Amino acid sequence: MKEKETTRVEAFSDGAFAIAITLLILEIKVPHLGAESSDRGLLVALSQLWPSFLAFGGSFTAILIMWVNHHGLFRMLRGVDSLFLYTNGFLLLMITFIPFPTVVLAEYLDKKGANTAAALYCATMVVINIAYSVLHYAAASNRRLIAREVPQAHLFRIKWAYGTAFPIYLAATRLSLWHASVGLAICMSLWIFWARLNYNPKGESISA
Amino acid sequence: MKEKETTRVEAFSDGAFAIAITLLILEIKVPHLGAESSDRGLLVALSQLWPSFLAFGGSFTAILIMWVNHHGLFRMLRGVDSLFLYTNGFLLLMITFIPFPTVVLAEYLDKKGANTAAALYCATMVVINIAYSVLHYAAASNRRLIAREVPQAHLFRIKWAYGTAFPIYLAATRLSLWHASVGLAICMSLWIFWARLNYNPKGESISA
Amino acid sequence: MKEKETTRVEAFSDGAFAIAITLLILEIKVPHLGAESSDRGLLVALSQLWPSFLAFGGSFTAILIMWVNHHGLFRMLRGVDSLFLYTNGFLLLMITFIPFPTVVLAEYLDKKGANTAAALYCATMVVINIAYSVLHYAAASNRRLIAREVPQAHLFRIKWAYGTAFPIYLAATRLSLWHASVGLAICMSLWIFWARLNYNPKGESISA
Amino acid sequence: MKEKETTRVEAFSDGAFAIAITLLILEIKVPHLGAESSDRGLLVALSQLWPSFLAFGGSFTAILIMWVNHHGLFRMLRGVDSLFLYTNGFLLLMITFIPFPTVVLAEYLDKKGANTAAALYCATMVVINIAYSVLHYAAASNRRLIAREVPQAHLFRIKWAYGTAFPIYLAATRLSLWHASVGLAICMSLWIFWARLNYNPKGESISA
Repeated sequence: MKEKETTRVEAFSDGAFAIAITLLILEIKVPHLGAESSDRGLLVALSQLWPSFLAFGGSFTAILIMWVNHHGLFRMLRGVDSLFLYTNGFLLLMITFIPFPTVVLAEYLDKKGANTAAALYCATMVVINIAYSVLHYAAASNRRLIAREVPQAHLFRIKWAYGTAFPIYLAATRLSLWHASVGLAICMSLWIFWARLNYNPKGESISA
Repeated sequence: MKEKETTRVEAFSDGAFAIAITLLILEIKVPHLGAESSDRGLLVALSQLWPSFLAFGGSFTAILIMWVNHHGLFRMLRGVDSLFLYTNGFLLLMITFIPFPTVVLAEYLDKKGANTAAALYCATMVVINIAYSVLHYAAASNRRLIAREVPQAHLFRIKWAYGTAFPIYLAATRLSLWHASVGLAICMSLWIFWARLNYNPKGESISA
Repeated sequence: MKEKETTRVEAFSDGAFAIAITLLILEIKVPHLGAESSDRGLLVALSQLWPSFLAFGGSFTAILIMWVNHHGLFRMLRGVDSLFLYTNGFLLLMITFIPFPTVVLAEYLDKKGANTAAALYCATMVVINIAYSVLHYAAASNRRLIAREVPQAHLFRIKWAYGTAFPIYLAATRLSLWHASVGLAICMSLWIFWARLNYNPKGESISA
Repeated sequence: MKEKETTRVEAFSDGAFAIAITLLILEIKVPHLGAESSDRGLLVALSQLWPSFLAFGGSFTAILIMWVNHHGLFRMLRGVDSLFLYTNGFLLLMITFIPFPTVVLAEYLDKKGANTAAALYCATMVVINIAYSVLHYAAASNRRLIAREVPQAHLFRIKWAYGTAFPIYLAATRLSLWHASVGLAICMSLWIFWARLNYNPKGESISA
């Protein structure tokens, strides 16, 4: 029973992650050159879309890493309850929200308004960080839903990671208002941190 | 066999729920400020999108709670038949319809037309309420598809909840025509009611 | 192994069906009334969307019934092979194409051009009918992929149904060019026929 | 455990594949004829959409074949690790990117700019070819994640296929700049090659 329960929540979450990650591409608008189109003109127009490609690649990477971590969290569960379901729902709300700040960033990264756009993007990461912390709490507080074989040290390590990232994301949001690319660079370096959190070439390699 | 049957209907339903919930964000239009864009101007433009954010958050919450209840219903089944499949299909039709009244609401909540928009939104909830009642009937009438271990009292409790909510949603639709926010507030307070219907911190906590 | 194989093809197919059915709603455009919006004006504008609602409801029903029949076909399989995968792929191509003729129909049903729009819609059903026939052939020819317990009579019944529907869909396409609603009415009455093909209140009710 | 691990990665991947394949249709724009619409005018307008239909059909076929090969790769695995997850993530990034060059192609295939559009399309295939090679390497290098029963010869055959296709895709990209349809024709003939790579009517037919 437990197995199936967890499975269905995972399926729904995977659906939301997969759709959010795929919708990003819809937001890159094809250039319309009209009657004066040419090979050279199209090439120039495509290359001017660089903020869109950057935002697409960045948010794709972000959602992918979030999915891997979500995946890692579910591997530790022995079941779910309604509190966990609604907490997970709040996280999914934020995941499906990501395309919006991504498009705002793509639109304004090379225009005036870049600072506001970058701050919105970083602020979204702050809220997602909180959502992950709360979800982890809903699962790991008193080991409510955690399977017996998961070591306590691993739970502390994850909790510590979320706690450490929180002020850094906050700082990135602030710094964005002063210089957009600095804030965004901090956000993206944290993604590498999240990716490393899970990556464990020795112990985990198969069926961990 | 039965297990697999139920699983595939759940997978299809989860897909429709997950997509409906994720599509909502596509409807929030990024402000286009053109040449005169500025950090301040973008901030103002973003804050003027509040009806969109409200509608997005509201409908996300609604679909999430509906999914949890759908999930709860399927937990009680021992199998599905074609009547149930088509009834479930009608419910999914209404779930995938939700983005439409949501966008109408986002567009007109701060304009003239708010009453019509709010009434459309509440009326959608009336029809979804009916769809849930019919789906419950298709499963629980004479315990057609209900697993043996499910207590009859639980079935009555759910039936009673749908029956009670129906006139309230109807009243909310009417009141919307007089004052949009009153109708919407009633709808949203019912969502809390639905969330509570399922939440059961003691008995259910793990693998219920 | 076989179990898992079939499962993944089903999951992919279910994904395509679920997304196609959910995308339909994206095509109903919210009326933009601008500064002169009013409750009455919005109501009128919404009611003028009737061809969109009709096309949305119709295509949703069509895809749902197609999914139930797809589901019925997979229940008879003992495995899949690459030929079946590509045949199934062609069917999915046509399923994901449905939103296009649906929008054309919604746009032109109450305008000049209705005949062409209706013929396009019916012609899509002709091609889908062929796709189902070919898929059934790929599975049932010499019982290649059919589980032992499935009676031969059931296979013949399905084959007969596809064969019978083919000339009717063709006729509906032709008649659409003369009178749009006649062609569409024939298409829709066939959906009832497909729904009945699967519905079997006695034998199937649970876990068939 | 391993089983479940692989399953969830497959589910997420299938989601991304299914959504990418379904989103393609959203990009075919319905012709708006306004007041002067007529049956003949609509027919002409629809037939002028041929580049869109061609691009839709082509990319659908491409994604479908990619999915079948992805499916084939996962059948050989005995588990996944984080390196494989991220490599798979990069492949999914490219899969979800496909709608963009598809729309560019649909827009410019019958206009000036066709060469650039075709080269972008072929270049996307180059990168996807690399992504598949890397994914295969992440799984098959020293048979890291490969199940015991998979013959080494099969792994070499796949590796050889990716290695052979790479310079052909590169050449197609170059040739596109000289003549768009030549480059595209080479890309599409390679799809047949990929489809054949997997198709194995004797050995595989059931539950392989």
